[in-house]
Amino acid sequence: MLFIQGRSNFKSSVIMENKSQLPTVGKVIRCKAAICRNAGKPLVIEEIEVDPPKAWEVRIKILCTSLCRSDVSFWKLEPPLSVFPRIFGHEAVGVVESVGEYVEEVKEGDLVMPVSQRDCGECRDCKSRRSFICSKFDKVPNMPRDGTSRFRDVKGDVVHNFLSLSTFTQYTVVDITHIFKITADIPVDKACLLSGVSTGIGAAWKVAGVEAGSTVAIFGLGAVGLSVAEGARLCGASKIIGVDLNPEKFELGKKFGVTDFINPASCGDKKVSEVIQQMTDGGADYCFECVGLASVIEDAFSGSRQGFSKTVILGAEMLGPPISLKGVDILKGRTICGSLHGGMKPKSDYPILIQKYLDKELNLDDFKTHEVSFQDINKAFELLLEGKSLRTIIWMDKDKLN
Amino acid sequence: MLFIQGRSNFKSSVIMENKSQLPTVGKVIRCKAAICRNAGKPLVIEEIEVDPPKAWEVRIKILCTSLCRSDVSFWKLEPPLSVFPRIFGHEAVGVVESVGEYVEEVKEGDLVMPVSQRDCGECRDCKSRRSFICSKFDKVPNMPRDGTSRFRDVKGDVVHNFLSLSTFTQYTVVDITHIFKITADIPVDKACLLSGVSTGIGAAWKVAGVEAGSTVAIFGLGAVGLSVAEGARLCGASKIIGVDLNPEKFELGKKFGVTDFINPASCGDKKVSEVIQQMTDGGADYCFECVGLASVIEDAFSGSRQGFSKTVILGAEMLGPPISLKGVDILKGRTICGSLHGGMKPKSDYPILIQKYLDKELNLDDFKTHEVSFQDINKAFELLLEGKSLRTIIWMDKDKLN
Repeated sequence: MLFIQGRSNFKSSVIMENKSQLPTVGKVIRCKAAICRNAGKPLVIEEIEVDPPKAWEVRIKILCTSLCRSDVSFWKLEPPLSVFPRIFGHEAVGVVESVGEYVEEVKEGDLVMPVSQRDCGECRDCKSRRSFICSKFDKVPNMPRDGTSRFRDVKGDVVHNFLSLSTFTQYTVVDITHIFKITADIPVDKACLLSGVSTGIGAAWKVAGVEAGSTVAIFGLGAVGLSVAEGARLCGASKIIGVDLNPEKFELGKKFGVTDFINPASCGDKKVSEVIQQMTDGGADYCFECVGLASVIEDAFSGSRQGFSKTVILGAEMLGPPISLKGVDILKGRTICGSLHGGMKPKSDYPILIQKYLDKELNLDDFKTHEVSFQDINKAFELLLEGKSLRTIIWMDKDKLN
Repeated sequence: MLFIQGRSNFKSSVIMENKSQLPTVGKVIRCKAAICRNAGKPLVIEEIEVDPPKAWEVRIKILCTSLCRSDVSFWKLEPPLSVFPRIFGHEAVGVVESVGEYVEEVKEGDLVMPVSQRDCGECRDCKSRRSFICSKFDKVPNMPRDGTSRFRDVKGDVVHNFLSLSTFTQYTVVDITHIFKITADIPVDKACLLSGVSTGIGAAWKVAGVEAGSTVAIFGLGAVGLSVAEGARLCGASKIIGVDLNPEKFELGKKFGVTDFINPASCGDKKVSEVIQQMTDGGADYCFECVGLASVIEDAFSGSRQGFSKTVILGAEMLGPPISLKGVDILKGRTICGSLHGGMKPKSDYPILIQKYLDKELNLDDFKTHEVSFQDINKAFELLLEGKSLRTIIWMDKDKLN
């Protein structure tokens, strides 16, 4: 549980290290994984067996991974909404240990990130500049393509994967459509942060298209909301209003471009949307909802200006009430849209973000608030549940801990 | 009540004719107007007094006008939602009789269209490429700028205006921000159609940004829905599905680019959205709701594809139930937005449409289904209420009737 300020020094040496793993190619690997056996219960580090990659698959040695609120959401869900035993985790950087048939994009030793967004490169959605949900594989309920798992526990029972990725394990198997190859220019723990941070940056940059001089309101200043602020800052927004019940979030938000702050508990008789309208002369150009509650989505929409504005939804309850909107309000030039993964296409968009990080334009560093060893993975859950962390980096090799 | 196929021959002669009106400048004009004295009752042709234009105002001799469903909606409304006595009408072509102080954009004798969209040319919305609701004058509840009317009946009682325009009268006074100047290249009755038709064309072209090869579903094939089809056709959509309970609308729709048709009454157990999903391999790229009912808006949204799609609302009940949407459906790349006046800016966008008409690319002619003399204006209401007309041209001078 450390607050890190500097960068860790973990670059191309991993590629050398990996070469010694090659004898495992084609064989089942025995390794450690953090398994969730019951909803909401601490993960247990257990030995598992990881099959070799099948066709179009890549087996990866995870170097570091991080915990996202989506992991926690599914970790809390009881069956049949979730399924156990399961290996969570979907933000990580690793080294390719071996590849299956037809995989040409990466090879043994490459540094890669498993990413949530599928990109087959062939369907009209993956070829489109705007769509970000692969339609070729959308009908596959869960990757891998054959719907089976590559994980077994020591009893031989299936351990399920998560979002086709499962990174809370020393080794995982991921479909090539979920792989983004990186270079060693960026420290692996910072690259790891991209998966989460790009969700908010993309919402501002790709989905909303925030313009220089525009006004922005962000509901919820967790890691996602703060990354929206960082994206809006990069896009040149002149006013970035954070809305959060925790007043400490204003100081934190300033690191990512937040210029103004509203605490809904301090608005008196006024609605948050009314305060936003006053602060922006009629409503914000772009409102972002990063809480995922229908009522907050409606507040965000009410705080957006008529004529032209966009309300972008970054989260939604699966079983929550529907969003209720007045047609006449939409008619007057208001748009409401969703942002899953920030509309990002990692293969084309991540290199831009990495370059911005290397050019010291993009603040990734402040999103890493803690780091723990793999053995202490449950501390990462505690920190997030207590609202203390933005991202905790979980190092598979504890020697990499600063 | 005539079905017109050719074009009428009414061009620059009107400009000459107007010159003889100049002695009225600065004086009150006595003329005929079709007044609505009670909600839903036939209009009465009465003599009224029309004041000279005040600063920033233009007095116009109306040549022809047409009836839109918005007129009918407000004509039906009881006070206090509507106000009487009132002069309806907001689609017209006329000749400038005189101008008030500060008016430089037009002069006596110019052919002009009064248009619903204000364009002050100064505020950030009017300068914006995307916004279409003037924010400078948005706080004025009703034009003219001083909130008073330029109309009185013979008893001296105020007659109210409609949408700052009021075109069911021989003379009207309109703010310069609501004036679009045209040339005599286009017949005045065809120019008159632009006000209504541009609502649908703009929804496809400006608001949705329909792309070549895309799929479109249009709910409701009235004049607005058919003009959306015409817009989608001009944008190169490959499949334009019309949805209407009247099966005769398919043949009519083909004139405006409709390629496929769904009658909701003939879908059996299937929802319209399911039929659209089947016809478009997962949902239409662009769905347009031209009925204005929350339930149909929800159907349209359900018929739009995930990944990237837009549902555009062209109408909404002021007092109807709210629109209910599932957050997770929006999250998956669906956008919902409104289109008031098709997002058109007449001063910059109408010249493009006029050129497309002159180049025989834009089908305006088939939107004019009937024409009547001003004395028979109530027939225009009957035709629309009976679903027989798209647009009825109402000629102020009955000699212009073909």
